[in-house]
Amino acid sequence: MTFDLKSYLAERKTLVETELFACLPAEGTRPAELASAMRHAVLSGGKRLRPILCLAAAEAAGGKLEHALPAACAVELLHTYTLVHDDLPCMDNDTLRRGQPTVWAKYGEALAVLVGDALQTLAFETLARTPSATTLPGLVTELAKAAGAAGVIAGQVEDIAFAGAPTRDIIQYVFQHKTADLFRVTMRLGALAAGATETDLEKLSRYGNNLGIAFQVIDDLLDTQQARSDDKPELTCLAIMSEAEARTYAKETTAEAIASLKSLPGNTAPLTALAKNMLSRVI
Amino acid sequence: MTFDLKSYLAERKTLVETELFACLPAEGTRPAELASAMRHAVLSGGKRLRPILCLAAAEAAGGKLEHALPAACAVELLHTYTLVHDDLPCMDNDTLRRGQPTVWAKYGEALAVLVGDALQTLAFETLARTPSATTLPGLVTELAKAAGAAGVIAGQVEDIAFAGAPTRDIIQYVFQHKTADLFRVTMRLGALAAGATETDLEKLSRYGNNLGIAFQVIDDLLDTQQARSDDKPELTCLAIMSEAEARTYAKETTAEAIASLKSLPGNTAPLTALAKNMLSRVI
Repeated sequence: MTFDLKSYLAERKTLVETELFACLPAEGTRPAELASAMRHAVLSGGKRLRPILCLAAAEAAGGKLEHALPAACAVELLHTYTLVHDDLPCMDNDTLRRGQPTVWAKYGEALAVLVGDALQTLAFETLARTPSATTLPGLVTELAKAAGAAGVIAGQVEDIAFAGAPTRDIIQYVFQHKTADLFRVTMRLGALAAGATETDLEKLSRYGNNLGIAFQVIDDLLDTQQARSDDKPELTCLAIMSEAEARTYAKETTAEAIASLKSLPGNTAPLTALAKNMLSRVI
Repeated sequence: MTFDLKSYLAERKTLVETELFACLPAEGTRPAELASAMRHAVLSGGKRLRPILCLAAAEAAGGKLEHALPAACAVELLHTYTLVHDDLPCMDNDTLRRGQPTVWAKYGEALAVLVGDALQTLAFETLARTPSATTLPGLVTELAKAAGAAGVIAGQVEDIAFAGAPTRDIIQYVFQHKTADLFRVTMRLGALAAGATETDLEKLSRYGNNLGIAFQVIDDLLDTQQARSDDKPELTCLAIMSEAEARTYAKETTAEAIASLKSLPGNTAPLTALAKNMLSRVI
């Protein structure tokens, strides 16, 4: 029997969005503009890839997805806050995201800074609702380390500071921190919330890290077919390798991701299908 | 024997700053400019009032200050991130703070946004080092609620959105959320980390909330003697009451703060002395 990825993704997306909807301040909550802007940021589409991965990690580790639901939402809220801040005029200066006006374009710069801040706070508040209280110190520490000054933010700092010709070093650094660190911790949080063993945690971490790198390489390959929304020179792996080499690199990291799922106690079919599906967009 | 507040504050400030110093990325950590800017934001002075209150709350509840040290640092890091973002050109547009250039004035706007983001992340990472793991869900939830979209950020949103003549409603709202919510949770975190009873937690919350209101009223009274650094109409309680009325209000809220310390199991002398000392600046 083949795994039906499309139905799986649709079902999980609904589950995650129902939960996210419940986390956010209701429309009309004072200050009304803040509630409205936070909802715009979080509920304007998106594939919900990271929270779906987080839930799948819990199941692959043999645990219940319900245990990982707060962590899954936390990761999505955290990811969304980084997008809101990345879009600001002083950063990427983007006015559109997923065909909708970005938060600053619709609500102004000051509110966009505060919306990002509030979404980060909400990420940790949501994470704290994880049923197993004893896992919480580990979950908070891991999410904060991956998201903070040695993780996602480090990647963003080097991304915006970079000028001139991209080197292998800077591309590896930004791919690892801006993208792979969050994919990796997404898998770890799901596994930890589900009570994974150290060995299984390590396997799922490797899946997450490799998938994160593959995701970014694939994104660069797809980006060559699209118009750019800003004038900044692009930090793309295609500056240091050919398209054919990038395809091989994406294939290799995807294969490594899938290989690391071996002998996990739970269902790994969704994670395998997800990785293959992602790669299929460029192969 | 009278309580020597001056030595107490100096000793506690050193303790808190040693801890903060250890939390921050070391100078030179990649990305070096981020580490440098985070250190500039946190280590450029300040009275460390909030972390000192947090430690004093733990002791007033009969607990050990060591248990509240991570929470104390978390509150200061969180407070610092709000200052870094409040100073941005799109918010208060301040170029100086405590006689030093603000983060955006020294490192640029984009890095200032990211420094604020990283300090908020670091606040939660630091909080997770609280020795008593079972208290952590409560600590994270309380800090996030007080700092988030229904707390400090709500206050800041209404502060920057306000235009025209200040009303009693908006002043109460901003004082409560932008200032008092953080003072209140500071006391609660210290008490919770020290294992306070529900009754003692409630007493210390009331102290924190009243002290926060008094702090803001006193700040407005002192502000009339200083030149403003921006052109925005000031959200001050003096728009709705006379200076004499504001002094009475500060006196009353300070008295209420002190009264709520009655029958706590630990040493409350520092909290009483702190509140009286704050009031003495305007009486």
